[in-house]
This record gives sequence, structure tokens and C-alpha cells, in this order.
Amino acid sequence: MKVDLIIQNGHILTMEGKGVGFIENGAVAIKGNTIQGVGTIDEIKRAYQAERVIDATNKLVMPGLIDAHIHTGIAIFRGVAQDMSNWMQKGLWPFQKHLRAEESVIGSMVNIMEGIKAGTTTFCDYDGRMDLIVENYRKIGARARVAELVNEIPDNVGDLPVGELYPFDSSIGNTKLKRNLDLYENHHESEDGRISVILGPHGPDMMSLELLNEIKAQGDKLNTKLHMHVAQGDREIDQMAKRYGKRSIDFLDEHGFLNERLIAVHLTEATNEETALVAKRGAGMIYCAGSIGIIDGLVPPVYHFIQSGGTAGLGSDQAPGNNCNNMFNEMKFAAILNKVKLADPRVFNATMALRMATIEAAKVMGIDHEVGSLKKGKKADIIIVNLQDPSFFPIYTKPIRNIVPNLVYSARGHEVETSIIDGKVIMENRNILTIDEISTIENAQKVAEEIAVRSEKDILEAKSDILDMVTEGLL
Amino acid sequence: MKVDLIIQNGHILTMEGKGVGFIENGAVAIKGNTIQGVGTIDEIKRAYQAERVIDATNKLVMPGLIDAHIHTGIAIFRGVAQDMSNWMQKGLWPFQKHLRAEESVIGSMVNIMEGIKAGTTTFCDYDGRMDLIVENYRKIGARARVAELVNEIPDNVGDLPVGELYPFDSSIGNTKLKRNLDLYENHHESEDGRISVILGPHGPDMMSLELLNEIKAQGDKLNTKLHMHVAQGDREIDQMAKRYGKRSIDFLDEHGFLNERLIAVHLTEATNEETALVAKRGAGMIYCAGSIGIIDGLVPPVYHFIQSGGTAGLGSDQAPGNNCNNMFNEMKFAAILNKVKLADPRVFNATMALRMATIEAAKVMGIDHEVGSLKKGKKADIIIVNLQDPSFFPIYTKPIRNIVPNLVYSARGHEVETSIIDGKVIMENRNILTIDEISTIENAQKVAEEIAVRSEKDILEAKSDILDMVTEGLL
Repeated sequence: MKVDLIIQNGHILTMEGKGVGFIENGAVAIKGNTIQGVGTIDEIKRAYQAERVIDATNKLVMPGLIDAHIHTGIAIFRGVAQDMSNWMQKGLWPFQKHLRAEESVIGSMVNIMEGIKAGTTTFCDYDGRMDLIVENYRKIGARARVAELVNEIPDNVGDLPVGELYPFDSSIGNTKLKRNLDLYENHHESEDGRISVILGPHGPDMMSLELLNEIKAQGDKLNTKLHMHVAQGDREIDQMAKRYGKRSIDFLDEHGFLNERLIAVHLTEATNEETALVAKRGAGMIYCAGSIGIIDGLVPPVYHFIQSGGTAGLGSDQAPGNNCNNMFNEMKFAAILNKVKLADPRVFNATMALRMATIEAAKVMGIDHEVGSLKKGKKADIIIVNLQDPSFFPIYTKPIRNIVPNLVYSARGHEVETSIIDGKVIMENRNILTIDEISTIENAQKVAEEIAVRSEKDILEAKSDILDMVTEGLL
Repeated sequence: MKVDLIIQNGHILTMEGKGVGFIENGAVAIKGNTIQGVGTIDEIKRAYQAERVIDATNKLVMPGLIDAHIHTGIAIFRGVAQDMSNWMQKGLWPFQKHLRAEESVIGSMVNIMEGIKAGTTTFCDYDGRMDLIVENYRKIGARARVAELVNEIPDNVGDLPVGELYPFDSSIGNTKLKRNLDLYENHHESEDGRISVILGPHGPDMMSLELLNEIKAQGDKLNTKLHMHVAQGDREIDQMAKRYGKRSIDFLDEHGFLNERLIAVHLTEATNEETALVAKRGAGMIYCAGSIGIIDGLVPPVYHFIQSGGTAGLGSDQAPGNNCNNMFNEMKFAAILNKVKLADPRVFNATMALRMATIEAAKVMGIDHEVGSLKKGKKADIIIVNLQDPSFFPIYTKPIRNIVPNLVYSARGHEVETSIIDGKVIMENRNILTIDEISTIENAQKVAEEIAVRSEKDILEAKSDILDMVTEGLL
């Protein structure tokens, strides 16, 4: 059979089965946007002839990484809110209140570049004005499973004192839900299915029960997932207690939200019992190790969730919290933070971390029939990683293999040389082919500087820890 | 004044003072191996004319990183002992018992390359046969402060059941101490002072009190530091209890080891009281966040050590434990693990982590008069970092600055473009100029494969967790 591309002579991790599906010096055949075959070189060469061959000697061929939870729209505020208390109110908000939608989109593109350059091929982006941001994915050629952030709180809620109940405004809710539904209507399964849309309720504390129920009904009607922050912080728990006299997970269970449609993000404040209940009900979980570690100093109960039978993926969250959107970083943090939490070096091994950035994330997002592993019939989302980087030295394949530990604990992302998304080479020799990288960054930097000027008064008035540190010469 | 090199137009972190010493768009003048001036462009241009100018527009200029504790001699076993119990006995040892000294040196060179490519300019290497390894530093041009690992236990102690007292053999101790003293004699302050030598007692459990006292006496005579593992694990504590009826730190205090000569590495098992005592006595501490997190699932009491007035630096330890020797990784892990340990996002901020990889590490190692910050008269160990990488986007300098959080939490090491060590450009555009990188890796890979063949029987007999995982297809 004639195919378009064969990648050969590389070590392969298919991520099929219960482990990593290692194939020594194998090959992958691709036609159009689809994987035609994965196997030994002999098997693939017997069955296929290709227009183009990529030699992957001394390289690793594996599924592209899936970032299951990312807010690219605020990447333009990377690093403005670290090492502080009230990071959102005092660090991020003084900037964010001056952010215009078109500026958010410009910053988002650099964030997507960052992900692609570290092996991410699928972005589960969850942000406001996704109708604009989605064009970045269209242009750069990445796979995206997007949702509009739906809430019914005013934009200036950042000014509200912590502890006060959020005011709900149903006109805001209606506008944002309409945006999410329009997004679905206009973009779902577009670009040959590379762009897909799900629903994005912001959190159980961010809207009325009425709107939550409306979103649930729409999810049933469209047969789609709900990407939602759940028990993400003590502020949410406090809002739920004051409004309903209940904790988030009890409330969601009572109202029928805990099921396989739900993608529960963070669960930072969930007790072990609540965590087990979410898992038992069939909802998926997304764990953002770096973000919650750096913002809150906490390790959410993801290991307990998985031990309770749940399926969980990893996400990088947002740059002003985590500082980076790099799944290599997430895999490392996820493994080491859980080892330390449980004081056991055997838990959360490298294979588990890698699966949570590939096939398990695909399951959580409902796209495991398309991506997350290398298998005949799945979409060709493939990265090729340079194993001759010192971070991978040496390679052992017999009698033990060390590629996966070194991928998770040592590699950092720059080892990814080539990225193929939906059958197209999007990055080659670390150059993204679909956009101009330098002018994208330079343009975005100018925009950031303009925002800083507009925000200056609010930043100074916020009297944040980070401002003190700058004043004292500590930053 | 005529100088050899001016680096100009970059943002500068001098690491002088109590913070990071930020200079916006500044310049550094270098003559020979020495920094002549650091300041604004105007100041430097007025005072100096250079043979060569490096334009650092959109780049960061800062001191090279100091890896305060690294065993490069076992880098050739990266990734063979992760996610398991008894990592040393069952994971590492079946390989290591077949390692020949010359093979160790070949692997070490790739490890040093890895460090340089991630911004490390000073390596505090602490390993066996340092007389051979030191030649790598001489050749590649890195700064090294080395010590021979001195103990008096037989090489095959890895075969000894855990719980049995180590047998001591004074002839081994004499040979190894002689190697350390010869190393001092032959290499200390060689290469214009780029190579220096200190003493390297392996740990209080690894030799007789007699040999420990002899090393202490030699340290006094040579006026040099003692680089030593202290309270590094429960096995050490158990050995000390069985042999002396004491814990390590009490024992060392009683025998006069706790003073400013001591560089206490790990302190994993130290109680808060013991930690405070080590700090109070003036000894320094090295914290290896990744290694102890991954191997043991623990966070040593480094934050308590610093709160008790102690000076601490970061080290990457060894590749079979940590998997990588990258100080960007260490800074990230150190910050996030301590935030989580103390459940407080404000502790262990980015500035603290960065100082511990530069000026504080230099203080611990006794080389802060030479390196660790950019200051007139210090050695020119400087890295130039590309701020136009997406991981640094955007750069804010007013009214708050975000370069340091993004350096610590987002950058990964590949952003380092240029490395200047002792006034010489060792890496430029990410190419190391002093050795051939690819042939070094290819040659070392062949050696690793030969070791794997010789080790196979022992690896299979060790029946390690990692072997089970390979057999089950999990790796």
C-alpha cells in the first residue's frame, strides 16, 4: 500500500496496552492524517511504500503529548504572581483587568508555541473568548479541544474582597453560554476534526444552579463533556458553603453532575471520600501538579483518585500560576510531588506520569479513539525526540530499559525535534513551520509592555508581595 | 582601559547584595579570566574598550550556575534505578560492580556536557578515581572543585545485606586518602585556579573514627573544606547506631567535625534539632532536591537549616538517582517541594532558589571570593540566556519584574546560549567549543552497551522492581 510518510529506525513507545508499548527500532506508516501501521521495520516495509521517509535512528517516536487543561489566554502574565499570597487578587488581577480580548489572543499564540516546542500536540484550552483564541490553533496547526469559560460573574470580580459572595448576573451567564454554544456550532469537528469543542462551566461556585443545569442539559443534548474546575481552592469551598451550605462535590453529586461527562479539574480541596466518590461516579480528573504546587503549596489527591479506579490526565494550567506550559515539567512534578506526599519512591512511577500525558489524558478528554497512542486508524499526532541529547544518555534496552525514566525525569522538552499533527509536519529541527516564531514573540512582547503601562496604577495600589520584592531588589 | 570582551545590552543579574542585583540593559567587561566591571552600558563604555563585543539584546547575563554536589562518575547509569525500593543495591549496584575506572570517566564527560548545556559552570564533583575524572574538566574547560570519595569499605559492599555493619579495611582507607591527597598535590589551583581540590570523606558511617580524624587533621593542615554526606539515609543512621550507639550528627559534633570546614550533604534524616545544630556550628549544607525526592520520596530539612541561620547550596547528585544534572531542574524542585512541605506558596521563593544555585552555593564551597556573582575582580564565569524563548515570554521590568520567577519556574536550561568560564567562551550558540559533542556521546553509548552485556547476569539475578516492569511491558 502507498502511504505518505514512514518514520523508521527509531525506538517507539506506542502507549498501547497497560504500559508504554515499547518497540525497538520500529517504524510508523502514515497516510493523510491517519496512522496506517506501527510495528517492526520489516513489518512496515513489507506492507507500505512511502512518498517520504524520516529516519529516526537514535530517536524516539511516540504520541504527541496532551495538555489536558490550559488557559492560554492569560499566558501574557507569566511570572507576575509567584511566591505570594492572594496570587489571583493581588498578583494577576491588577494586570488582567486591563487585558483586551485581542491581546489575550496574541499572548495565547506564544503559549501554544511553547507547548508545541515541548512536545504538546493536543491543547485542551479552556478560557474566555475562545472564539478568538481558536483561530490560533487553526493557524498553527495544533489539535485543540476547546471550551469557553462560562460563568455569570462580572469581569471585575477580582476587585471583590475575598469572603464575599460572588454576585451572579444571568445576562453574563447567557452571553457566555451562548459563546460556548456558538463555538460548538462554528468550530466543532472543523479542520478535519482537528478542532473540537466541549462545554466549559467555570466552577460550581461561579454561576447559579439554574445555569449549571442548563449547561448540563446542553451537554446531554450535544453528547459532550463538561470541562470544569471542581474543589479547586478554599475560596470555592467557602462560596459553596455560604451559598448552599454544602461542599462542592456533595452539591454536584446531588444535582447529577458526577458522571462520565464531567472532567473534574484540580480537586485540590477534595477529601479522600469525595475524591473516591468522583472516581466511582465515572468522572475524569485533571491534575495540574506545577500550578497547584506553586500557587497553593498543595498536592491534590490524584493518586487516591487513581487508586479509587478513576482515570486522570495531566494539565499545565496557566502561565501566571505554573509559569510554564510544558508537559515534561508536569510529568516530573506529578511524579516527585506524589512520591514525597506518600513518602514512597515507588509510587507515581515514570510510566504512570507518561500515560497521564498521553493515553490517559485522551481518555479523560474523550478523544482516546483518535489520539493518545500510536495505533492503526488513529490520527497521526507524533513527536520525534532526539535520544542523543545528554539528558537521555545512555540508552539501555537490554536487560532493562531506561528510556521512559529518562524521558520523564531528565528530558525537558527541547529534545523534541519534530512534531507531526494530524499527519502534517508542524515542527521540524525545532522550527515551527506554520508561523514566524520571532515576530510572533516580538509582537506579543510589545503588547505586554503596553498592558504594563495601562496596569501600572493598579499594580502599585495592590501592594503585593512581589511588588515589595522588586522594591527591595529581591527580583 | 583595554579589555578582551564586553557583553552589552542584556539584562543583568549580578547576584550581589541580598537579592539578585538586577541591572536593566547593562554591560560586563572582562579581561583575561577576570571581570573588570559590571554596570550600565554608559558606565562600562566610558571606562573600557574591548577587543570583542557580544551583543546581549533580549538576553540575560548572569553568573554561571554552581552544581555543589555531583557524582559524574556514575552518570553512565542514568535511569537504571528509578521508582523502586533498594535503588542502590538492586538497581545501581548490579551495573556498577562491572564499571571500570576508564568507563566511568567516559560517562562523566557526557554528564559534564549536560551540565554546561544547562548553564552550570562550576562542578563540585565528588567521586572515586577523581584523578582520572579531573582530566575531563581540564579538557572541556569547566571550573571544578573536586574531591576523591574516601571510605574504607570494599568495592563489593553493594553485595552486603542491608542491616549488616560495613566491614572496614584500613588499607582501602589509606589508598583512597592518599588518592585525595595526591589529587590535592597534583591538581589544586591548577589551570590558573580553575581546578581546585578539597577533601571528600564519604560519610561518617563509611570509615573508622581513626580515618575520619586523619582526614580532619589533613583538612586543618591544608586549610580546606570537607565535602561529606551526613545523615543521608536511614542506612547511615542504622550503621552509626550499631557501631557507636549514636546518630550521625551527635557523633560528628562530639568529635569536632561540625564547623565551617564541613560541607554537609543531604541531612535527609536530620531532625530539626540536629539541623539547627549543624547550622549553628557554621557548617554549610547542600540540598539535592531531585535526587532525594525521587530516590527516597523525602524533602530534607533545608528550609529549617536556612531559617536556623545556615548557608545552603543546591546540588544535582547523580544521574541514576535524580536522572539529570541540571540546575534549572534543581531550582524548580527545591522551590516546589518546600512549598508543598510547608503548605505555603510564599516559602522558598524563586530568588532563594536562584541564590542557592549561585552565590550561596559559592559560599558553601568556599569559593565566593571567586565566583557566584558578577563583581569586579571575580572570575569571569558568565552565562548568556535567550529571553526570546517562549518560556520567558513576556519580560516585564516595570513596575514589577518577572525574569527571576520565569528563570526558576519556567526555563529549563536549553535557553542558555553562551557559557563563558574563566574568561573563555566554552559554549556558543549552544555548541560546546572544546570537545566534539556527538562523538563523545556515541563513544560513551558504546561503552554503556558493553557494560550492560557484562552486567546482564547480575541484573537478572537482582530481580529488581525495574526488571519486573520491563518484563511486564511497563517500560
